[in-house]
Amino acid sequence: MNRLDQTINKITAGDSRIRDQARARLEQLTMPYWALGRLMDLAQDLAEMTRSLTPPVNRKTIVTMAGDHGVVAEGISAFPQDVTPQMVRNIAAGGAGVNALARQAGADVVVVDMGVAADLGDLAASGKILSRRISAGTRNMAKGAAMSRDEAVRAVEAGIDIAVSLGPSVDVFGTGEMGIGNTTPSSAIVAAFSGCPVADVTGRGTGINDAQLTHKVRVIEKSLDVNRPDKHDGLDVLAKVGGFEIAGIAGLILGAASLNRPVVIDGFISTAGALIAHALAPVSAGYMIAAHRSMEKGHRVALDLLGKKPLIDLDLRLGEGTGAALAMNFVDAAVRILTEVATFDEAMVSKST
Amino acid sequence: MNRLDQTINKITAGDSRIRDQARARLEQLTMPYWALGRLMDLAQDLAEMTRSLTPPVNRKTIVTMAGDHGVVAEGISAFPQDVTPQMVRNIAAGGAGVNALARQAGADVVVVDMGVAADLGDLAASGKILSRRISAGTRNMAKGAAMSRDEAVRAVEAGIDIAVSLGPSVDVFGTGEMGIGNTTPSSAIVAAFSGCPVADVTGRGTGINDAQLTHKVRVIEKSLDVNRPDKHDGLDVLAKVGGFEIAGIAGLILGAASLNRPVVIDGFISTAGALIAHALAPVSAGYMIAAHRSMEKGHRVALDLLGKKPLIDLDLRLGEGTGAALAMNFVDAAVRILTEVATFDEAMVSKST
Repeated sequence: MNRLDQTINKITAGDSRIRDQARARLEQLTMPYWALGRLMDLAQDLAEMTRSLTPPVNRKTIVTMAGDHGVVAEGISAFPQDVTPQMVRNIAAGGAGVNALARQAGADVVVVDMGVAADLGDLAASGKILSRRISAGTRNMAKGAAMSRDEAVRAVEAGIDIAVSLGPSVDVFGTGEMGIGNTTPSSAIVAAFSGCPVADVTGRGTGINDAQLTHKVRVIEKSLDVNRPDKHDGLDVLAKVGGFEIAGIAGLILGAASLNRPVVIDGFISTAGALIAHALAPVSAGYMIAAHRSMEKGHRVALDLLGKKPLIDLDLRLGEGTGAALAMNFVDAAVRILTEVATFDEAMVSKST
Repeated sequence: MNRLDQTINKITAGDSRIRDQARARLEQLTMPYWALGRLMDLAQDLAEMTRSLTPPVNRKTIVTMAGDHGVVAEGISAFPQDVTPQMVRNIAAGGAGVNALARQAGADVVVVDMGVAADLGDLAASGKILSRRISAGTRNMAKGAAMSRDEAVRAVEAGIDIAVSLGPSVDVFGTGEMGIGNTTPSSAIVAAFSGCPVADVTGRGTGINDAQLTHKVRVIEKSLDVNRPDKHDGLDVLAKVGGFEIAGIAGLILGAASLNRPVVIDGFISTAGALIAHALAPVSAGYMIAAHRSMEKGHRVALDLLGKKPLIDLDLRLGEGTGAALAMNFVDAAVRILTEVATFDEAMVSKST
C-alpha cells in the first residue's frame, strides 16, 4: 500500500464522547446558554478532533505551499508568473501579509516549493523554505492534464510528509498558498465537484477586469471539456485541473487528520485543496476549520460542499494563509472558553429561572 | 464648564492626512489591491484616530462597567438581580468569559461598580474593582426616570475619569458591561434614537421565552411613554431610560476620544452607550470600532445609527466585553499589516499588468 492510502486508512472520526463532555461543561459556564455562540461550537469541534477536554493549540504552524501553473500561458492572471518566486522570497524573508498575521497569531510559517517555475535552490539550501518540487510548474490544463496521476500522488504525499514531519512540534496546522494563476485551477476543481456552471464559481483572482474574467471562464470551461475530470476520483480531478500547491494542501490536510490535528483552511485555493482531501478521505473534513469567507466568487459553493461555515468575513482575498492565521486567534479563544471559564457551581453564580 | 463639557470640547476629528498616508502605503504592499479588505480599512481608521503611521495598540484594556436596573422589578430578565454582583465577583476573580478572551487578546480587564444593588466594598477595598457607584441601581424606568439628570452627568463623568486616569498606560480601550436587565434600557435607548417600533429592537437578552419577550416589549413601550425622552438630548435619553453602566460606557468612549485613543465597542449594551456618547459628541464616533454583531435584535439598528460595520459575526450575546476582546486581535492584525508588510519596491516584487 502506498503512503497516500496508508494515511487515508489512518484517518478516523473524532471522539463524540469527548465532544459530549465538552458540551456538558460549556453548558454549565457562567453565562447564558451558549452565549458565546460559534466559539462554543468550535470548542466542541476541537475537543472532538483532539480527543481532549483541554485541546492543545499553543503551537501553531501555517504551511504555505507554492506552485506555478501552465495555464497562465492563456493569460488568466493580472500578475506575471515571476511574482510566484518573488513572493516566495518575500514570505521567506518575513515581509508578506501571512508573516505579519502569523506573528500576530503566534504562528510559525513554513514555505514549501511544491513546483515553482524558477530556481529557489538557494532558499532551500539555507533552510528558509522546504523543497518538495514535483516539477517547474504544471502543464497547461487548457490543452491536457495539468499533471500525471503519478505526479498528483507524489505531490499529495509530499504534503502528508510535511504534516507528519512537523507533527511532533505542531498542535494546529494552517494552510496557505502562493501561485500566480491558482484561482483558475481552483475554480475548475470547484466546478468539477459541484457541477455548477464555471461562471458561477469563477472570480477576479488578483484583480482582472470584466473582459479578462470572461476569458478566464472560457479557459476553465475549455480545460474541463478537454480533461473531463471524474468527480468521484479526487486524484483524477487533481491531476487534470489541479496544481502542485493544491495537491500539497490536500496532503497537509490528510496528514494533519491522520495525526488527529486540527487544520485551519485558509481561503478559496486552500478550500479547493480541502475538496481534494475530502474526495480522497471524506472523514478528513472532521479536522478542517474554515477560516474565512473569501471575496472569490466560488468560495461559498466550495465551503457548502464541505459543510463548513467560515469564522471570518472581512473581504479578504489574499491567500498565503492570511485568513488561517487570523482564525487561529479564534481557535485559541475557543479553547480558553472551554478551559478557563468558571461554571455556575465553581463561581457560585445563580442560574436562570 | 463642567468636566463633561470640557471633555466634549476636547474631542476633535482624526488626522485625514495621516489617513491618506496610511492608504498610500497600504496600496503599495506586496499583494493585490486592498486584498486584506476590511483589515486595511481598519488600519487606515487607526492611523487617522491615533495620528500615526505606526498606531500604538500594544497596551489594551477592557473596562467592564457594572450596574443594576430598577426595571427588573417588572420581570424582564431570565436571571435574578443577584447575578450582577455574583458575576462582578466572578470577573474580578478572573473566571468569566471576558477574562478568558482578554487573556487570549493580551488585554487587561478593569471592572467598575457604577451602581450595583449590592455591597461590593470588599472588592473595591482590595483593589479588585474600581468603585464609582452612583447609587444602588437605577429606579424603575417603567414608573419614571431611571436616574436624575445630575446622576446621569456624574455617571458619564465617572467613565471619563476612568479613561483619563488609565490613559497613560492604555493604547486601546474596549468597552464591556455586566448588569442583569440591561438589554431592556438598551432597547429603550435604541428605540428612542431610531424611532423604530420597540418590538423591532428588543430581543431575548439572557434567554427569555416568547411570552416574556412580549411582556418586555410592553415594559419598554410603557417606559418610553411615561418618560418621553428627547432624542436630541443625549443626557435626557440616558437619565430617563438608561443605566449607570451604560452611562459609564458613554463616558469611557468620550474620555478615550478626548485622548485620541481607539475604543472597541463590544455588543448591544455597549452600542447603546456609544449612541449616548454619539448624541453628546458626534465626532466621538470617529474613535469607535464596532467589535461584533450581537445576536440581540436591536444591534443592527444601533450600529446603523452610528454608521458602523462590525468586524465579527459569531452569534455572540454575552457582553462583558467578550466581543471587544476578540476584536482586539483584529486591531493588532490591522496595525501589523500597515507596519510590517513590505511594499513592492522594498521586496522587489513585480506589480500587476
